[in-house]
Amino acid sequence: MGDVTNGSTSDRKSAVPEGTKDLPLYERIALEKRANRERSIPEEWRLPKGHVPEDQLNVTDVPMHCGILTEKECEITELAAAELVERIQSRELSSYEVTLAFCKRAAIAQQLVNCLSEIFFEKALQTAAALDAEYAVSGIAAGPLHGLPVSLKDCFQVEGTDASIGFTAFSNEPALEHEESEITKIMRQNGAVLFCKTNVPLGLMAGETYNAIYGYTSNPYNRSLSSGGSSGGESALLALKGAPLGVGTDVGGSIRIPASFCGLYSLKPSFGRFPTFGLRDGLNGQEAVRNTVGPMARSVRDIQLWSKTVIKSEPWMTSDPDCLPIPWRELRIPDKLCFGIWLDDGIVKPLPPVTRAVLKTKAALEAAGHSVIEFQVDDPLYLDTLKFDLYRSATAEALDKNLAKTPEPWPRGCEMLQAMVQGNTKASTVYYLWNAQAKRTEYSFTYDNYTSLWNVLDYCATTVPVSYVSLHEDATPSYESRNDSERCVWKNYSPGTFAEAPVAVQLVGRRLNEEYLLGVTQKCDEALKMSMSYRGY
Amino acid sequence: MGDVTNGSTSDRKSAVPEGTKDLPLYERIALEKRANRERSIPEEWRLPKGHVPEDQLNVTDVPMHCGILTEKECEITELAAAELVERIQSRELSSYEVTLAFCKRAAIAQQLVNCLSEIFFEKALQTAAALDAEYAVSGIAAGPLHGLPVSLKDCFQVEGTDASIGFTAFSNEPALEHEESEITKIMRQNGAVLFCKTNVPLGLMAGETYNAIYGYTSNPYNRSLSSGGSSGGESALLALKGAPLGVGTDVGGSIRIPASFCGLYSLKPSFGRFPTFGLRDGLNGQEAVRNTVGPMARSVRDIQLWSKTVIKSEPWMTSDPDCLPIPWRELRIPDKLCFGIWLDDGIVKPLPPVTRAVLKTKAALEAAGHSVIEFQVDDPLYLDTLKFDLYRSATAEALDKNLAKTPEPWPRGCEMLQAMVQGNTKASTVYYLWNAQAKRTEYSFTYDNYTSLWNVLDYCATTVPVSYVSLHEDATPSYESRNDSERCVWKNYSPGTFAEAPVAVQLVGRRLNEEYLLGVTQKCDEALKMSMSYRGY
Repeated sequence: MGDVTNGSTSDRKSAVPEGTKDLPLYERIALEKRANRERSIPEEWRLPKGHVPEDQLNVTDVPMHCGILTEKECEITELAAAELVERIQSRELSSYEVTLAFCKRAAIAQQLVNCLSEIFFEKALQTAAALDAEYAVSGIAAGPLHGLPVSLKDCFQVEGTDASIGFTAFSNEPALEHEESEITKIMRQNGAVLFCKTNVPLGLMAGETYNAIYGYTSNPYNRSLSSGGSSGGESALLALKGAPLGVGTDVGGSIRIPASFCGLYSLKPSFGRFPTFGLRDGLNGQEAVRNTVGPMARSVRDIQLWSKTVIKSEPWMTSDPDCLPIPWRELRIPDKLCFGIWLDDGIVKPLPPVTRAVLKTKAALEAAGHSVIEFQVDDPLYLDTLKFDLYRSATAEALDKNLAKTPEPWPRGCEMLQAMVQGNTKASTVYYLWNAQAKRTEYSFTYDNYTSLWNVLDYCATTVPVSYVSLHEDATPSYESRNDSERCVWKNYSPGTFAEAPVAVQLVGRRLNEEYLLGVTQKCDEALKMSMSYRGY
Repeated sequence: MGDVTNGSTSDRKSAVPEGTKDLPLYERIALEKRANRERSIPEEWRLPKGHVPEDQLNVTDVPMHCGILTEKECEITELAAAELVERIQSRELSSYEVTLAFCKRAAIAQQLVNCLSEIFFEKALQTAAALDAEYAVSGIAAGPLHGLPVSLKDCFQVEGTDASIGFTAFSNEPALEHEESEITKIMRQNGAVLFCKTNVPLGLMAGETYNAIYGYTSNPYNRSLSSGGSSGGESALLALKGAPLGVGTDVGGSIRIPASFCGLYSLKPSFGRFPTFGLRDGLNGQEAVRNTVGPMARSVRDIQLWSKTVIKSEPWMTSDPDCLPIPWRELRIPDKLCFGIWLDDGIVKPLPPVTRAVLKTKAALEAAGHSVIEFQVDDPLYLDTLKFDLYRSATAEALDKNLAKTPEPWPRGCEMLQAMVQGNTKASTVYYLWNAQAKRTEYSFTYDNYTSLWNVLDYCATTVPVSYVSLHEDATPSYESRNDSERCVWKNYSPGTFAEAPVAVQLVGRRLNEEYLLGVTQKCDEALKMSMSYRGY
């Protein structure tokens, strides 16, 4: 490793801060990235030192009372995306004032839970001002997201910023205009104002959010907990209302896990509805279980707004060879629906607050006139055994190769993958991949599981926030774990540890049937809101 | 290898003919399969010995003049599928008499070019009679294919018959009802009468049709030539009008190559339009380049009839988890179109009859008022280099494992794959597959090639028969080959060798845009038929 502080080699290396030349290269890169991020937050948007005690766990109220936002900015940032767009289009609000309010609130969120990766507030304000000016002249909105600030998970390429996805090896290589992800372009074309990107775990491959560059993102409802992952920067930001609408990705639960941890609505679509082209995920070409792009927000209506907007752009025509030519379908959802609920997969029984949320949803649905039946699934471990051949062995290999570039040690949270490479587990060959894929397709007729297996089967799924962990309602019952996986999950649970954490339910729909699932999600949400026991968001 | 002729072991083994006990197991199995097939053709449908001289190359006129078909059966079998369905529905013809006519003509075809694998004429005649009886009572057609005999490539599972796809290891394992391929079920549900399956190369992996069980299928227009592959039994049967409509599969040209060799219309769809579930292809789980199912027939209208029928069955709802929910789209094709033609990929220049067919099509299109522009493609060798990682190494491994079961030597035509396994080429790992897949997706924006690369890119494609090889119009020009591939193709060409062979053009459309491509194909066909120089089919 050469001396990289004297500017003699590449741009990337010359930018490493002075006085850190004895640190390993990856740490110097990380230090510089953090320093740059710090500099992007104006002095007047900083929380006074000590304003929020380190041990204050629930920080969701801080933005409204810290004095950084004006009263109007408080009002603006409390509104959902669809309402903001309406007010901007009706000229009640300007895109500039909306964008400014969210930039400020995102800056506060960053200081509270460390949720941002790339910050480009200045560019965003310029874009917003330009949109306002054009709109004042033309009277024609730039699109269904006209003037709306939208945050993106770090893996989306945005001109002039990194998409490091936690690898120092991918740092200081800002994307060029033509490298922008298709979703980035579609957001711009529809009038969105991009203003920040959000933190992720290394290579997007963990259910919590930590990497050597930006560190750990915590949960705004309880800062001793994770905001989830891999779209965990996004969920933390949205929960603090630092953005009205965000875009994540999900290959194994990466939208649904953080959305449920932070009390948000979300959609993991089937592959092919929304473009994934130009995304940096560190697993390029992994196709046995496809990565998907989807929205996260604070209402079903906002999720629908984003989904409809993207599909109306007809991304299959020009922008992504993997997109399917399935136009947006306006469907009538029957008034009375029949829901199936799955209370236990036989491997890991859900923890008490989760079971309570599912039963509360059942009660609300029944009270609204829907019917709910329980179902069981045969042999839920089956697909789990396929995952090694489907993607796990190569995932480990791909991450290891990227870490080696700088060279950077494996971070915490990836121990299982690390062990595969370092234990010299024999890499799976294409022939065995085929066998695994054939078994998966055969099994598609019958198989189910809680989260990642909806990816394996390519079903679509949404989250609906239902409740919070309650000290008295969610006590640890005496329960005899049936296996090590279950023991591991249950031994870490106590209502005290998870105090005030949001709890959501997941709704699952058939493959490529997003419009219908969103309609059903709306019905479920309405039922929950009507139900007496609903605490409300 | 034990004694398998004394009935002491399984059913499969006991059925091997007497007096062959010293032969290797696979040869005994093959002998028995051929004997069974022979027995399925009634004595009175056999061509008299010597009726067709061994050295008669073009046998397309034999069925009409051999005396086995009645005059009415000659008329019936000359009709295209759509017309047959109309006449059965209007009661001008019965399904029974149509089915009987095609059974007889298929039997003649089998004797001329060895195109059939499984024969089930008796069952077909029973089905036809039952359809007629029901129709007489109800007056309601069973579906858009009511009463129409349809032939299937050997890889489709049909209750009570083998889908050996050339492997003795897969022989004498007749499919059970629930194992039938989705296409088989859809054909039945729509009123089709299944009556035979057609020959294929080993594991469907060659451009000509030969295997150890049934031997070689030759071209009805010139029996010294191949009928193409892997749907080469299908193409030979359809060219002799031994079936009005057939179903093939295409993972690298396996519909288009035989269709063009035998003067047929065909469609290779994009993956996901038509169900592939339950198909036996020896490469289960191979998903880097997807196998597709498509129709082969004697008119564009028949291709449309089949495509529309299958899609109107909504296979995505129940029958195949890989099918996409894209309904049949009725499109208006503009009167004036712009076609791009590709005359030379820079690797292998098409042979003189092919170039003549392309230019003839260009002239016909221009005469009909369409415009035609030439286009060139950058770096056409690129995707070719990805194929090893995408599927070739595992293809060799998969075929080898099936051959070893009986054990059976590698047949001719698969030398390249055999060399991969026997040369101990290192199998490609999942990680390298991902790299190859990523490069393929990236390249989808720009890449083209003659046949198999439309599969890699998942574009849809059709064939349109245009002309025949002509001794005086297709002389070998002096041409200096640019590389070994081209030298190999050109050195085998002479207009004498290929005399009277049909020549087709291929039309290519964007991914999942089958309805539009079929409409355009119709326009092209009309232009060709209008053009003065068209010889007619």
